[in-house]
Amino acid sequence: MASVEELRAKIQQLEEELQAEKDRNVSSAGRQKIETMSSEVVDSNPYSRLMALKRMGIVDNYERIRDFTVAVVGVGGVGSVTAEMLTRCGIGKLLLFDYDKVELANMNRLFFQPHQAGMSKVQAAEKTLRYINPDVEFETHNYNITTMENFKHFMSRIQNGGRNGEAVNLVLSCVDNFEARMAINMACNEINQNWIESGVSENAVSGHIQLIKPGETACFACAPPLVVAENIDEKTLKREGVCAASLPTTMGVVAGLLVQNTLKYLLEFGNVTHYLGYSALTDFFPTMSMKPNPTCDDSFCRKCQEEFQNQQALNPSSEVEEIKEEEVVHEANDWGIELVAETSADDLVSKPAPELASGISYAYDKPAEQQQIPERSGGGDENQEDGESLDDLMAKMKSL
Amino acid sequence: MASVEELRAKIQQLEEELQAEKDRNVSSAGRQKIETMSSEVVDSNPYSRLMALKRMGIVDNYERIRDFTVAVVGVGGVGSVTAEMLTRCGIGKLLLFDYDKVELANMNRLFFQPHQAGMSKVQAAEKTLRYINPDVEFETHNYNITTMENFKHFMSRIQNGGRNGEAVNLVLSCVDNFEARMAINMACNEINQNWIESGVSENAVSGHIQLIKPGETACFACAPPLVVAENIDEKTLKREGVCAASLPTTMGVVAGLLVQNTLKYLLEFGNVTHYLGYSALTDFFPTMSMKPNPTCDDSFCRKCQEEFQNQQALNPSSEVEEIKEEEVVHEANDWGIELVAETSADDLVSKPAPELASGISYAYDKPAEQQQIPERSGGGDENQEDGESLDDLMAKMKSL
Repeated sequence: MASVEELRAKIQQLEEELQAEKDRNVSSAGRQKIETMSSEVVDSNPYSRLMALKRMGIVDNYERIRDFTVAVVGVGGVGSVTAEMLTRCGIGKLLLFDYDKVELANMNRLFFQPHQAGMSKVQAAEKTLRYINPDVEFETHNYNITTMENFKHFMSRIQNGGRNGEAVNLVLSCVDNFEARMAINMACNEINQNWIESGVSENAVSGHIQLIKPGETACFACAPPLVVAENIDEKTLKREGVCAASLPTTMGVVAGLLVQNTLKYLLEFGNVTHYLGYSALTDFFPTMSMKPNPTCDDSFCRKCQEEFQNQQALNPSSEVEEIKEEEVVHEANDWGIELVAETSADDLVSKPAPELASGISYAYDKPAEQQQIPERSGGGDENQEDGESLDDLMAKMKSL
Repeated sequence: MASVEELRAKIQQLEEELQAEKDRNVSSAGRQKIETMSSEVVDSNPYSRLMALKRMGIVDNYERIRDFTVAVVGVGGVGSVTAEMLTRCGIGKLLLFDYDKVELANMNRLFFQPHQAGMSKVQAAEKTLRYINPDVEFETHNYNITTMENFKHFMSRIQNGGRNGEAVNLVLSCVDNFEARMAINMACNEINQNWIESGVSENAVSGHIQLIKPGETACFACAPPLVVAENIDEKTLKREGVCAASLPTTMGVVAGLLVQNTLKYLLEFGNVTHYLGYSALTDFFPTMSMKPNPTCDDSFCRKCQEEFQNQQALNPSSEVEEIKEEEVVHEANDWGIELVAETSADDLVSKPAPELASGISYAYDKPAEQQQIPERSGGGDENQEDGESLDDLMAKMKSL
């Protein structure tokens, strides 16, 4: 039998081990909350480099960041990095929505770590993010927004989830399937909520962001999918032993462009881009704007269009950016953009994609030199006032 | 005095607490090494989404990634994310160079966490990265590469730091000052080592990457700085109570573009971009290529040029991309690019930058509409064979 002395020695040893373990444990360390953002240039100030944006003449009042609430829907490869960037920028409040669990198969993208495998994505994300910046307020929802009941709750949180019970300032869509995008689109049209859609193609080498202002720009239902999805999410694909490719690079770039435009939108600096694409194989970044479709299937979109036009008529001098592009049917060009109107998602889905496994289709066209669908090449000069086609101009640009 | 029973109870309690603490402690969890990369689509396979790049027809042989060694010089806002992306992609070996410590002031950028404040950046990075992917080999150097002795050691590690003692496959410059860039340039010219330079401006809203192949493309000394720096790093600035601004978005985008081009270079897919800029205020991404300067100050650059030309003469059919742009002196245009030749860094440094604190200058021109330096506007049609200027073409592109 052990002597009291031996037991005491054992206790001391355990206490030391426990302390060492606590010291090593990141979740017990961290920093204190900071009441007011300061510009002071000291090593201990996590906001000095952000407040420097004022001195540099980029942002008038960076501190306002704390007044804003952003909802991030989908906390995967793009959404998690998006949430981390906003957290490190000191956003006021974040709402996170996801129903998925972390898996080791997610480790090829940024943010999640191996020990989080099995945890819900929103729970794992909140823990890491709160630790990185305890000044941010978090609200997480571990559910699928596309079921009837959850959809209603989701919409109510968008309407009332702001810091003082008001609507959130912006919704960021970082989901990986068509159904969820349509749900976000429906909710945002109904409550006239601005949002930014984002996406990465299944072959991992292209992506995009798209700002949607109900009634003012095309909604997700107005111009069916620049992102074509077959309403099959990763889970379904996996059961068939097939999965989409992904890269931390493409997703990091898309998250970076998404949050950069979010900061420009919230803090009012630079120009917020309506649509920005990223084609990784050629480092090509097409931009464009799209007007809403007057015959959009979504009645709330049509209602927002009416409201927007009435408002414009009453206040013609208001500073609304001119959207130049008209709807063009099936025009393809060197920009790699397809402007689509009066075309259903089914039309797009049915296009041939012979190299891909069943259930997967490319979200983006391949670069022009690889295109094999003859009816898509050529054309494209209908809108040129000086009779010069986009293709001609692109050729000239390239020759420079 | 406590009874033996009480002591035993205490021991049991401590043992339970210790176990709980160990369970929470991320550094005691993690995953086992994986011998061979597999394409199997199961939740537990961290490589399934990367190997899917083969099935998607993007990369022929993704497993080759394990054969490559990359050196990352500078483990700050860009370098740390760069190293994390390469780690998650399963790179064979990473060499990390930095002499700085983590501070809370770094928390506005991705990667480092509050509890790492005070640790050396390379040590903190290695710990996190090894935990994320134990299959990657790491070699870290906690020193400043610009001192004479360290420079020699740095160069020897570039030459012999590969997995089997051979040269590394690529050097990535993620440093924040001119002196370090010149040191990397000098080393890479001397040993004919390809590298990619990266940079983010002091106002945090623009950045670039630039592939440098000694003798084939302009080196960092050939066309003095697209990035203008005054040879003053962050440390010096801070002493004066001034610091550069930074954003996780811009740095994340630059790191993403850098690693994406690294993957394209190593795994031979898509086109590796020679120079790619990112202007966040307008989401503008200029690209270009530059020939080396035959009168470059760096004698090793001139030697590499000679070797390259001899090689070309012997093997004229080799697939070298044509570099079209000629050197242009002080041309400015809507692209936001300035092609500079026969101009010393001092000339550029002396340009007026009235809004900035002493010791800081913009690394990039502001967008054209904000430019206030008259001698920089206009011009730009010298190289157009059809007599149409870049400005004219840009105007037409914009009007589309």
